[in-house]
Amino acid sequence: MTTHKFEHPLNEKTRIYLRVEALLHQMEKASAFADSIQHQLFFRSLFDLLEIFEQIQLKSELAKDIEKQRLTYRSWLNVDGVDQEMLSTLLAEVDEVHRNLMSADRFGQSLKEDRFLSAIRQRFNLPGGSCCFDLPALHYWLHLSPEKKSQDANKWMSTLKPLLDALTLWLKLTRETGSFKPRVAQSGFFQSDAEDANILRLSIPLEYGVYPMISGHKNRFAIKFIDFKTGQASSEEIPFDLAVCC
Amino acid sequence: MTTHKFEHPLNEKTRIYLRVEALLHQMEKASAFADSIQHQLFFRSLFDLLEIFEQIQLKSELAKDIEKQRLTYRSWLNVDGVDQEMLSTLLAEVDEVHRNLMSADRFGQSLKEDRFLSAIRQRFNLPGGSCCFDLPALHYWLHLSPEKKSQDANKWMSTLKPLLDALTLWLKLTRETGSFKPRVAQSGFFQSDAEDANILRLSIPLEYGVYPMISGHKNRFAIKFIDFKTGQASSEEIPFDLAVCC
Repeated sequence: MTTHKFEHPLNEKTRIYLRVEALLHQMEKASAFADSIQHQLFFRSLFDLLEIFEQIQLKSELAKDIEKQRLTYRSWLNVDGVDQEMLSTLLAEVDEVHRNLMSADRFGQSLKEDRFLSAIRQRFNLPGGSCCFDLPALHYWLHLSPEKKSQDANKWMSTLKPLLDALTLWLKLTRETGSFKPRVAQSGFFQSDAEDANILRLSIPLEYGVYPMISGHKNRFAIKFIDFKTGQASSEEIPFDLAVCC
Repeated sequence: MTTHKFEHPLNEKTRIYLRVEALLHQMEKASAFADSIQHQLFFRSLFDLLEIFEQIQLKSELAKDIEKQRLTYRSWLNVDGVDQEMLSTLLAEVDEVHRNLMSADRFGQSLKEDRFLSAIRQRFNLPGGSCCFDLPALHYWLHLSPEKKSQDANKWMSTLKPLLDALTLWLKLTRETGSFKPRVAQSGFFQSDAEDANILRLSIPLEYGVYPMISGHKNRFAIKFIDFKTGQASSEEIPFDLAVCC
């Protein structure tokens, strides 16, 4: 049965983490410059990231969160029944990611200082603003060899490696705290307690033709299923799988 | 010798025409939904177009411009030395495009009224705003079969067919009014009269490592070549080809 995977953040910080994760993946994918339009997604992801970095202190938030995970895992040292070898490996990984994060520059600093990127950033958000006459420097850059473009893209992306590693680890460990359990939405509605959770993960059978609208915060949440065709709340009984991740 | 093709509009209306042309092409290309990120460019092009349609009365502007071209070509009827058969074919094409344009709804009207498109449009411009939790309806749509997605995309694009046809014809006829002639920028600078021109077209050898910064209006323009590596005005002698299109 084909399902629709869905994730919902239960607090603002996790919402930003998930957005940043999506943008980093999108930038990575678009960096192949596989067709004549993919560069637009590459630069847009990059500029969206810079905008987010300007809005929040992502580095210190993430360092605090990784530190919290480190303390949790450390408390399991020498506890009976916990695989100590696996735990040591994990703690070493957490330590390394945390160290690299702490010694990294402010996220996006070198990208903001890059002359080429700054020159194109300001006009990139105009509707249809990526025409050659709006961005002649970009248009020139697009004519460079695939090797040179790829080299530039890798240089820009490498500055975000400490962020990518830390975020990937934090999200991986967070997602692993929850396991999928079958649930049923009666009359298209489901609610429950969350107990300080960060992310809800849903797996919804496509055959019901619905998507979820989720409201809530770390301690309580409600899921209303919407019928895609009508745009109205569904009144059906909808079975789905749910993982609550802390 | 590899060259860098470049176009520059000499008035605001042509600037918008070129942007709309670029967006329509981009939307067409992205409508293949060839990878997991291309849909973003499809919807962004579509929403950028809607934004432009809200800003200017594109339909009446374009109808006036097509009408002007029609009058010009009509004045060549029965003129010695003009291929009358080719002229009739062209005039028939102009007539058809003009008729379809006039009988079309206001551009983007049906797209603005589309429930699905309106629902996703408002959040699409958030930095990183195309995550599943921001746009659950879009996320559901992405899980539909390639046939269904393609059918939707074609339905949306078909409403813009009269615009695409008229704009393509107007730009084709405009571009054809100019022919490329060799020019030389002394100390990286070139200026000339334009005589009511709409578009400058340049073909610049890549080996000089420069891109053009153009200022001007319909009667006069100046081209300053910028060195890509240094970002400074070039002081080299730069040969290039130029077409001035009315």
